[in-house]
Amino acid sequence: MTNKPLSSCVLIIGNEILSGRTTDANLNYLATRLGERGLPVREARVIPDVEEVIVATVNACRTVHDLVFTTGGIGATHDDITAASVAKAFGVPVVRHPEALRRLESYYSQFPGGMNRARARMADVPEGATLLENPISTAPGFRLGNVYVLAGVPRIMQGMFDVLLPDLPQGPPVRMRTVTAAVREGDIADELALIQAHYPTLDIGSYPFLQNGTPHTSLVAKGTDATALESATAALAALVQRIGSVPEIS
Amino acid sequence: MTNKPLSSCVLIIGNEILSGRTTDANLNYLATRLGERGLPVREARVIPDVEEVIVATVNACRTVHDLVFTTGGIGATHDDITAASVAKAFGVPVVRHPEALRRLESYYSQFPGGMNRARARMADVPEGATLLENPISTAPGFRLGNVYVLAGVPRIMQGMFDVLLPDLPQGPPVRMRTVTAAVREGDIADELALIQAHYPTLDIGSYPFLQNGTPHTSLVAKGTDATALESATAALAALVQRIGSVPEIS
Repeated sequence: MTNKPLSSCVLIIGNEILSGRTTDANLNYLATRLGERGLPVREARVIPDVEEVIVATVNACRTVHDLVFTTGGIGATHDDITAASVAKAFGVPVVRHPEALRRLESYYSQFPGGMNRARARMADVPEGATLLENPISTAPGFRLGNVYVLAGVPRIMQGMFDVLLPDLPQGPPVRMRTVTAAVREGDIADELALIQAHYPTLDIGSYPFLQNGTPHTSLVAKGTDATALESATAALAALVQRIGSVPEIS
Repeated sequence: MTNKPLSSCVLIIGNEILSGRTTDANLNYLATRLGERGLPVREARVIPDVEEVIVATVNACRTVHDLVFTTGGIGATHDDITAASVAKAFGVPVVRHPEALRRLESYYSQFPGGMNRARARMADVPEGATLLENPISTAPGFRLGNVYVLAGVPRIMQGMFDVLLPDLPQGPPVRMRTVTAAVREGDIADELALIQAHYPTLDIGSYPFLQNGTPHTSLVAKGTDATALESATAALAALVQRIGSVPEIS
């Protein structure tokens, strides 16, 4: 337990997200789980499968954030260049990892196609990297310094992340409370700013949305101070009630 | 029509995405529509509602990309700081825009709460900005230089984007064809790399996924050269057929 939350960064590596073919599902999962662990995500970037972009982005982010998680680009085909790019970012060569190769050979021996040259490439990791177990489809991710390299397929990424989670550092968990009501945020904005000013250790956000055509607003308070959080939540509920609406607290 | 696609960048501004409370729905919409327009998204970033981060990110991205689209942070509450931050990034003051104020006054006169100080803030834009119409809820976005500032609520963002789309520059549309089959990508990786090498103007990606527990792969070819695209698509389908699978082409 440290006093200040460590900061995490997520790099989504994949042309398919930038082209709109696929909607990213990994950021939300990582943001939620890392927040619960006290390792809040402070930045995320979506970048293409282009070596110089991956190298520059990994180096920009690993020096600014405590932890960096990448997703995507560790499969068996020509467009999977994440491992080689991360190695280049750290200035180390790529090596074939014997334990990774052993796992892949054992796994693929059960399938008709069997082990082959393309699949063996999935055992290539930067020199000095530690393997991250893949409980779904075997091909491992890896950790190098403060960079964790995970698969892109959401189910596989989640399986890998859940295995490595207990080994991550732990900060004070960021708690969150939400007060939702059928109000327009513009009707409560001034009072809301006063509540934010009264609780400087918390981060209070206002998120308007339509429900069956009726304007609603979610007021979200977040922070590591549980006492302040409960007190602020009560103040937000009272604000909503004062203008005649019924708060829903979660 | 230019010959080389212009590059777009999307900045998702919002603590709620980084905390995992909300799943972003804007990147996929913008990526799809901008790709169709020949303005492919080359990078996206998700950043918090923190002034110095917004200023630094807007300046980093507007100098590297032809067009920058931001979403989020233009509402009526204290946490809506996008307009002021973009003004600071460009080194210009924030001014209250008379036409924006007129539209807001007219719109809010129909509601019980009416116009107030908080809502008037939504007429504050950087000096020199051009308003972007909001056909859903009136509060406008704006364009300053090559930066387009849009709402965060997906329906409102989409409404604003659809109005401004005809005024955007236009590049050669990026076309995409997909060949999907019940194959493991590791069984076709070598031949796939040869096809990619044969069509250097195209970008060919391989995306494995599970369907009812059975491994499938989507082979996606993308590019502006329609002739090369059709020829590569036929080669991808033939590759899949050679290993005994039935390609589905879309």
